[in-house]
Amino acid sequence: MENETSVAEAPLRVACIQMEPHIGDKAGNLQKSERMIRDAAKAGARLIVLPELSNSGYMFQTRDEAFGLAESIPDGETCRLWARLASETGATLVAGICERDGAALYNSAVVIGPAGCIGTYRKVHLWDREALFFEPGNLGFPVFTTDVGRIAAFICYDCWFPEAHRSCALQGADILCVPTNWVPVPGQREDREAMANILVMAAAHSNSVFIAAADRIGTERGQPFIGQSLIVSQAGWPIGGPASYDREEIIYADVNLSDARKKRTWTAFNHILRDRRPESYASNLKTA
Amino acid sequence: MENETSVAEAPLRVACIQMEPHIGDKAGNLQKSERMIRDAAKAGARLIVLPELSNSGYMFQTRDEAFGLAESIPDGETCRLWARLASETGATLVAGICERDGAALYNSAVVIGPAGCIGTYRKVHLWDREALFFEPGNLGFPVFTTDVGRIAAFICYDCWFPEAHRSCALQGADILCVPTNWVPVPGQREDREAMANILVMAAAHSNSVFIAAADRIGTERGQPFIGQSLIVSQAGWPIGGPASYDREEIIYADVNLSDARKKRTWTAFNHILRDRRPESYASNLKTA
Repeated sequence: MENETSVAEAPLRVACIQMEPHIGDKAGNLQKSERMIRDAAKAGARLIVLPELSNSGYMFQTRDEAFGLAESIPDGETCRLWARLASETGATLVAGICERDGAALYNSAVVIGPAGCIGTYRKVHLWDREALFFEPGNLGFPVFTTDVGRIAAFICYDCWFPEAHRSCALQGADILCVPTNWVPVPGQREDREAMANILVMAAAHSNSVFIAAADRIGTERGQPFIGQSLIVSQAGWPIGGPASYDREEIIYADVNLSDARKKRTWTAFNHILRDRRPESYASNLKTA
Repeated sequence: MENETSVAEAPLRVACIQMEPHIGDKAGNLQKSERMIRDAAKAGARLIVLPELSNSGYMFQTRDEAFGLAESIPDGETCRLWARLASETGATLVAGICERDGAALYNSAVVIGPAGCIGTYRKVHLWDREALFFEPGNLGFPVFTTDVGRIAAFICYDCWFPEAHRSCALQGADILCVPTNWVPVPGQREDREAMANILVMAAAHSNSVFIAAADRIGTERGQPFIGQSLIVSQAGWPIGGPASYDREEIIYADVNLSDARKKRTWTAFNHILRDRRPESYASNLKTA
């Protein structure tokens, strides 16, 4: 089973694009995403992550506003642009997008490779007023087999649920790509690591998976976002970023995704996933 | 259900005793535990956590050595001493102990209140050569109702399994007490937080529970331990410690455990435990 998909033997350059989308300005957001994707690819990145809702902005005032900015996957103009960029650059993209499927809206991430759209993740855990506009994701936590490795995507508040990381790791994900719009949490201070970064480090370490989180910056309709995009190794340590609080920038890391498949057999006795003992866990941990 | 047990309305002083047990020197280890428990109680602590295997030491060479140092709960001399100290000081203790139950050995934590032994936790996830000596814990992750609040205990490598924290939180634990013998992990450096501390902060934040982790120090038969005992709030931020790498000391925090029961309803829409969506998680996340 471990040999089913290829995984880069040479280092793979991963990039997280930290940018500021502007609510409602889809044309401007797409132009910016194109420029930064081209920059990242020019710098050698073959896996590129963009923030949550990077084509639409985040702070919708009404469902109508969200609906008007949403697109279908893969035939909307955003996916068509990103597919063309993936094809031209040879990079695989994981990007947050405001998705419309019939009457339903989803806060989604699309995975697009050089040959076209590979799959979609729909945010499972909705945050705050997102519940007014979006349906809860109904695709679980899929892991996508791609030329660069096994990729899972999830979005922002999903990071607060260790079940999300574990679900992806148990399905063999090498790297979790996280389009996000992190907001400040109580007690956060600039002289210590962002709690969002701590969650990412702990999740990578506990599951022996790489994580690449691309955040937005700026303040939109009164809501500040915290930047600090981060790439961590399968050991949990930062290998790219954290990025700044407030500047558009691209962070990079060169990773060997096959390291994630070793699942840290630290000792002759231990294996981070096989050491799980589900029979000991609370019976309401998993009900499906 | 939320009102079934009392929980301190006034702040509760929690202490973690960071000490160095010496392998095989049970009398010396117990003397030291008595002195430090009395010091903590004198300083006002009403919940006191001691390290893993604090009565025996950790680096057993043979099963016979471990067996010779193990005791039954609650009638062994270690539990009798700790019960007397709990009674005299009015404090509740959570302490790591080498347990013998018939022919079986367990790496256990005992919870002892002023009125006597309340319960036992047996380490579920065994680390490294512990598998040579101990049975895997067979009591799940119990949550104990005590006068100071709902207490769960777990031990060291258990912290690497988010299922452990979640199991306790789902059963209503207010505080997780962690007797531990943390060892260095690859990539750890003195200029950044210990990965063990990062795991503790992430677990507290993700579950909205307090965590008090009492580590040992010193090098035993070639194995170094890292100290850095830590108490974190239900928001995930340190409120006591981290302690030093290499000194015996006691860290304190004044907590209001009822804060854990609010489960951080950050927004009108969100509740950190009720937002879980088990139907979306991998079907092999929980098999029991």
